Amino acid sequence: MSRAAPDLPALGDLAESLSPGALLTEPDSLAAYRFDYTADAGAGMPLAVVRAGSAEDVQATVRWAGAHGTPVVPRGAGSGLSGGANAVDGCIVLSLERMRALEIDPTTRTAVVEPGALNAEVKRAAAQHGLWYPPDPSSFEICSIGGNVATNAGGLCCVKYGVTMDYVLGLDVVLADGTLVRLGGQRVKDSAGLSLVKLFVGSEGTLGIVTRATLRLVPAQTPPATLVATFDDVEAAARVVVAIGNRMRASMMELMDQASINAVEDHRSMGLDRTAGAMLLAQSDAPGGARGEEIAEMERVCSAGGARECFTTTDAEEGEMFVAARRSAIIAIERRGAIMLEDVGVPVPRLPELLTGIAAIARHREVEIPVVAHAGDGNTHPVVVHPPGDPDAKARAAQAFSEVMSLAISLGGTITGEHGVGRLKRAALPEQLGPDVMALTHRIKNALDPQGILNPGAAF
Amino acid sequence: MSRAAPDLPALGDLAESLSPGALLTEPDSLAAYRFDYTADAGAGMPLAVVRAGSAEDVQATVRWAGAHGTPVVPRGAGSGLSGGANAVDGCIVLSLERMRALEIDPTTRTAVVEPGALNAEVKRAAAQHGLWYPPDPSSFEICSIGGNVATNAGGLCCVKYGVTMDYVLGLDVVLADGTLVRLGGQRVKDSAGLSLVKLFVGSEGTLGIVTRATLRLVPAQTPPATLVATFDDVEAAARVVVAIGNRMRASMMELMDQASINAVEDHRSMGLDRTAGAMLLAQSDAPGGARGEEIAEMERVCSAGGARECFTTTDAEEGEMFVAARRSAIIAIERRGAIMLEDVGVPVPRLPELLTGIAAIARHREVEIPVVAHAGDGNTHPVVVHPPGDPDAKARAAQAFSEVMSLAISLGGTITGEHGVGRLKRAALPEQLGPDVMALTHRIKNALDPQGILNPGAAF
Repeated sequence: MSRAAPDLPALGDLAESLSPGALLTEPDSLAAYRFDYTADAGAGMPLAVVRAGSAEDVQATVRWAGAHGTPVVPRGAGSGLSGGANAVDGCIVLSLERMRALEIDPTTRTAVVEPGALNAEVKRAAAQHGLWYPPDPSSFEICSIGGNVATNAGGLCCVKYGVTMDYVLGLDVVLADGTLVRLGGQRVKDSAGLSLVKLFVGSEGTLGIVTRATLRLVPAQTPPATLVATFDDVEAAARVVVAIGNRMRASMMELMDQASINAVEDHRSMGLDRTAGAMLLAQSDAPGGARGEEIAEMERVCSAGGARECFTTTDAEEGEMFVAARRSAIIAIERRGAIMLEDVGVPVPRLPELLTGIAAIARHREVEIPVVAHAGDGNTHPVVVHPPGDPDAKARAAQAFSEVMSLAISLGGTITGEHGVGRLKRAALPEQLGPDVMALTHRIKNALDPQGILNPGAAF
Repeated sequence: MSRAAPDLPALGDLAESLSPGALLTEPDSLAAYRFDYTADAGAGMPLAVVRAGSAEDVQATVRWAGAHGTPVVPRGAGSGLSGGANAVDGCIVLSLERMRALEIDPTTRTAVVEPGALNAEVKRAAAQHGLWYPPDPSSFEICSIGGNVATNAGGLCCVKYGVTMDYVLGLDVVLADGTLVRLGGQRVKDSAGLSLVKLFVGSEGTLGIVTRATLRLVPAQTPPATLVATFDDVEAAARVVVAIGNRMRASMMELMDQASINAVEDHRSMGLDRTAGAMLLAQSDAPGGARGEEIAEMERVCSAGGARECFTTTDAEEGEMFVAARRSAIIAIERRGAIMLEDVGVPVPRLPELLTGIAAIARHREVEIPVVAHAGDGNTHPVVVHPPGDPDAKARAAQAFSEVMSLAISLGGTITGEHGVGRLKRAALPEQLGPDVMALTHRIKNALDPQGILNPGAAF
């Protein structure tokens, strides 16, 4: 992508319309804001970076961009895994990282948050009032609420508590023409007019730029009880996931396949069974005595479902060790080579077919693809691993990456359960949605951003 | 509204493109499909009624309507409370009541449902597999899933389990040009592309016509324990609602004010305290022993919050008697005169201000406005009662109806929490949303339905 850069006087106009120091144009700054966590080599070079201090800065930037036909790439904490915040050539990278005001209202049980606030900051502020903001991407310590809203981020607790979408009650959004609209608010239920709040959640900055979010909070979670069970194969584990899900609402239901169990053991031994075909990690946070009852019922289902071993604990700290092992899986796998991280999802009962198919792709393309999964929602993270510095292996990995997405689509699934499409998976989206839904998508995009200046090339 | 009616040969073309017997044009049929439950005297007269038997019938109707510039008013079970399915002159009323196929997939825990299936039918079919479809509008025995999706219907369990929006995983939608798009599916998490499923939920038939929905199911609810508490005034009751909500997730949290308590007692005495200013009805469906613990904790909060009396039971049948009394409140109030049913919502802590303000409006306009409320989510149903056949009283009731909506908006609330805007509240929507959000709404509407044939005059 190449566009004629506006001349320097024009950038001067932009600087004058912004709060002091918001505009960065030094090469080091441009380089620093060029990539999100995917560090895609195809990322472009921004014309400038705006570190917005207020919604007015966002409006001024978007208005300037519209006047000059300049693309705007919004950016939160830069922790995205799909290249949604990677720069395009000649764009303004609009960073929201300085906008991090955060207020908890315990009477409405809401957090009113600027987009740069980190997920963990919201959780901590809520906890001070005995409240909880559930969505918990593994990156929750470093990812921002703005990015969470943009990608409809998920996490480990979603199997019981849902995703970011389910917690966004209101949004302030700057539209492509610079108008700031206030959608929703602190009311829990609202059927008035179109569901515009929900439309902007997961839109990856292509329809507007979120400058404030009102998030629903719930009472603090009770300390969970934990179950770890191993199985001969993923089929048996997946059947148990379905059976448990039909009986109760587990607050966590994670799966690791043999390759990821071994990657974790290689990284830091926890005494996991390296010969197991799959390991389930489940929790119950039911209140009071029900927690123990749910874990006992899970244990019965695991035994009936052919578990090799089953360990349970009502000690929250002991349970947290296993959760930490699960959270460390991607880091453990990263040590095995260069990686391409998938985020495919399927209806839960199709998990065995997905995992069997992924193993076949790995064999065919001669790459490793360990899998960790939010099994309770059918959302998996296959990690395509290849030796760094080997262009042929890299090409095979890219083929495998594509094939895993096609496989998920063929099983009634999705190319992304919680990371967003970004620029990394954009080519696969039409295969999932089909031409009619793509056309509908473009109609909405064109209605809201006729110039196409908002995050062009992301998502669709 | 008046439009030139297409001539009879054109209707003949429509009949030929539909399944046999789908087109009705007899005056009796037109009259029968003219109104939804609101029976608004301003409803128009349809040109014809199509009782669709399939998505193809829906497509044929919409295509024909597009070719002739004829409005299409989609209709489910006709139980709507906002006039969203009231005919406009010269329209086709497109009834989905015959499309009621319903399949439960226990492995994915989903129901795949045609729009005419009743909410209660989905609940019953799910129960046969030990599963539950939570959304429970009071009309659940007679309302259809299509109408529930169109209005983003709620109910009594929403305080813990959310609204229709939260259970819709996929939709087949016929767009204004007759294209059928398939959105979402049986996967639980999906961040691929725009949140189109959510956009259509609550759009009241203005963006497209739903021909199939994939609904998420959860494990069957455990039999609840119940608490009934009375208070001197609504302020005290509302403070207790906030306090309980900060401690636990009650599965029901309903409030009746003094006028509605008395209306219920007049209708069928249950021994309720006629002198109480407010009554709370709360339930816990926590698993196992936690149910009793939660109810005991609620009782402590009620006592500390100044409850006059507090009654609890773990007997589900005894609890159901109180729920039945609550559900009968609107029917009891209907016996007092002609009614206009509100559906306003506010942030929960603003409930006392809302209720005090409503009492002031009732005094000023010389009408009765008893209130029942889904207090846990701040969603209330004030019922404006006036003597039938008194035009002056009717005019005062209409003023009160409007003023209650304005009051809710001024408190950060909404004109409708779960019934939809329909035609009854359309005039109030701009006051809630403001000109910029109205403009955004129209941009999306125009992008999806440029001719404006889908349910014109509903919602916006």
